[in-house]
Amino acid sequence: MSQPKKATLLIKNIGQLITMAGPVPRLGDQMKELGIIEDGGLAAAGDEILAVDKSDRVEGQIELAEGCEVVDAKGGVVTPGLIDPHTHPVFSRTREAEFEMRIQGKSYMEIAEAGGGIRSSVRDLRQTDSETLTAKTKKRLDRMLTYGVTTIEAKSGYGLSTESELKQLEIIRDLNSIHPVDMVPTFLGAHEVPDEYRDKRDDYIDLVINEMIPIVAEKKLAEFCDIFCEKGVFEIEASRKIMTAAKKAGLKLKFHADELASIGGGELAAELGAVSADHLVYISDAGIKAMAKSGTAAVLLPGTTFSLAGKQYAPARKMIEEGVIVAISTDCNPGSSHSESLPFMVSLAALQLRMTAAEAISAITVNAACAISRGGKIGQLMAGLKADAVVWDMQDYRELPYHYAVNLVSKVVKSGKLVKI
Amino acid sequence: MSQPKKATLLIKNIGQLITMAGPVPRLGDQMKELGIIEDGGLAAAGDEILAVDKSDRVEGQIELAEGCEVVDAKGGVVTPGLIDPHTHPVFSRTREAEFEMRIQGKSYMEIAEAGGGIRSSVRDLRQTDSETLTAKTKKRLDRMLTYGVTTIEAKSGYGLSTESELKQLEIIRDLNSIHPVDMVPTFLGAHEVPDEYRDKRDDYIDLVINEMIPIVAEKKLAEFCDIFCEKGVFEIEASRKIMTAAKKAGLKLKFHADELASIGGGELAAELGAVSADHLVYISDAGIKAMAKSGTAAVLLPGTTFSLAGKQYAPARKMIEEGVIVAISTDCNPGSSHSESLPFMVSLAALQLRMTAAEAISAITVNAACAISRGGKIGQLMAGLKADAVVWDMQDYRELPYHYAVNLVSKVVKSGKLVKI
Repeated sequence: MSQPKKATLLIKNIGQLITMAGPVPRLGDQMKELGIIEDGGLAAAGDEILAVDKSDRVEGQIELAEGCEVVDAKGGVVTPGLIDPHTHPVFSRTREAEFEMRIQGKSYMEIAEAGGGIRSSVRDLRQTDSETLTAKTKKRLDRMLTYGVTTIEAKSGYGLSTESELKQLEIIRDLNSIHPVDMVPTFLGAHEVPDEYRDKRDDYIDLVINEMIPIVAEKKLAEFCDIFCEKGVFEIEASRKIMTAAKKAGLKLKFHADELASIGGGELAAELGAVSADHLVYISDAGIKAMAKSGTAAVLLPGTTFSLAGKQYAPARKMIEEGVIVAISTDCNPGSSHSESLPFMVSLAALQLRMTAAEAISAITVNAACAISRGGKIGQLMAGLKADAVVWDMQDYRELPYHYAVNLVSKVVKSGKLVKI
Repeated sequence: MSQPKKATLLIKNIGQLITMAGPVPRLGDQMKELGIIEDGGLAAAGDEILAVDKSDRVEGQIELAEGCEVVDAKGGVVTPGLIDPHTHPVFSRTREAEFEMRIQGKSYMEIAEAGGGIRSSVRDLRQTDSETLTAKTKKRLDRMLTYGVTTIEAKSGYGLSTESELKQLEIIRDLNSIHPVDMVPTFLGAHEVPDEYRDKRDDYIDLVINEMIPIVAEKKLAEFCDIFCEKGVFEIEASRKIMTAAKKAGLKLKFHADELASIGGGELAAELGAVSADHLVYISDAGIKAMAKSGTAAVLLPGTTFSLAGKQYAPARKMIEEGVIVAISTDCNPGSSHSESLPFMVSLAALQLRMTAAEAISAITVNAACAISRGGKIGQLMAGLKADAVVWDMQDYRELPYHYAVNLVSKVVKSGKLVKI
């Protein structure tokens, strides 16, 4: 008989232990259920959770390994490590000049003519060496970790050539092997049509389908394929063509859909069995119903609307009512949403999407896990799952949206280890 | 001949040294002028700035004292220490339940009936001991400091009895003597009418005028007197009466004005020569002109509109055009705006008040100093002034609004000393 495992980490004195035990995904009213244990304790052995229970029961049933790290939560809240299911973290130059142009009333076209937009990040990425890009990306991951984020989805999409797209995905792969934050890689070659293909868009689509997707799949550099399915970028038919090819190549699907106009992106994502469709500010009622039926998660990005000073936010309440899997993300990127703070998105989810604190926490834990095909593996605190947890400097989980734009994270545990931040 | 002073602190390798040298206050287009020195250096002796210049000139002209602290800004931005000119930091219980009720569509009246609002903070403050209140207030000051704030205005106003108002002001006084953040104390006995005076409002006004103001002035516990001049709270005539008495007692004046409705609060503040009028979401054009003429600073609180999910923000652009002194603050308080992050208010100033990064930085430094009668003393980096400075983890000051809801502060210097945060 094997020895019972000894705890290498113990979190005790937890006022509200938010386990998220319960349905995966959380749909409708289930999003309000956080599986709270008051006066809780959590023990981990290695990178795995060993016990989650009332504090005294955890301490009664487990033995501490020598050198076991003991964390005092001081009566505060503990949640699963947060999951950010939509980020573009690999870029060099920031685009604050564009932000200021928008504040001063410049239009999208004027900014593009002044050299702004996604294509400016493409020009920049192509001429920046991997070492510089890696260092800047690492700094973003470090900052995410300080905000309690332990897993992210990370996209390419600023290369738009085979070589530069691979460069981004290789940076993600290499950082993934050394950085505490886990990354789920997504190929986003169809983020825009690059400058050199503006007059031959079909040739670029061919390049994505016949060269990029096969190489990315063959090298196993991405788990997902994503596309900017939008009016004037990749419209429905082009999107169907690219994403069908990606699916055949064995990639799972994500969509940037219906962000600026309602063109049926949500419907297409559902039709092709995408794991998620993201943005969805202008999704149609038919799109919502289709996504509910197909089990395609909606990743909502309220920070993007906020940071573009938009008036219209995604119809989160309608999606929750219709039974769509709703997740929340930062959309961290240099153009439309430069923030690593997933907790702040909880404030926006409350104020602008009218989600309660409990619903928003579901959306950045268990449902965010589903949006990156990790449902039941992360985003919950239960014995046997990955020991990713956040100790918060708050007494009640409802402080998270309310005490806004400050960092309430006290400690982060990643894969069973206390991360020094 | 006296010896030249030796530097006890040196900040070198500053990419953009934002001195704010220039007009005090900054009016209109002057708000765009930050007095930037590229490749700058800053030396301090004791709590005073010794030299501000190009890095090599500073290092060439000053001698370092033994043990001089040398800070490498790594090519980043340095600004004056930030000034938050409107806060309510002395409270115990947080009010996240009310926040959630608002998200779920509950009205102000329903929340008040459920025991919410300012009066709930009053009940709480009265029954909380000074030690607990001091510890909680100190924690807020610590957090402000991590966000680069070195001076705040701090109000009473959750006591609403002579004893409890004095208790708050004494906590501010005592913390002021031990905490790095400087506090300018404001008496806000006229924040609301307390429960026990709801049926005899005039008696409460008498109490404020004839008992509270004289004691506060006599004990020198406040430099300013503030009032919630608003429809249904203290309207124009009651406000004139109270504030005239405060002025006679030697207190300088501040107003909560025209936050919820346009009742002439801005005009009254100007008429009585108030140093500032704050909120001003619904200020009239006449009010703006009157404030420009009287030199009454406008302290705008975009976080309050944000955190109440309001649609209407103060008319900042009109005020700037009309020559009003415009400052920005958090309004840090447990009800309508629970945040210690003044940098985040810069993001809101950009996105919602349409202020450029430069204008917003003027509004939290030199103009914020004017809003608390400290113009020319703090909020600028010039030889002879107080050595309060922030070293930022950004290369361009325009990143401040753009890279939102995260903490970009790298180091804080308060009174010439590097604060460990």
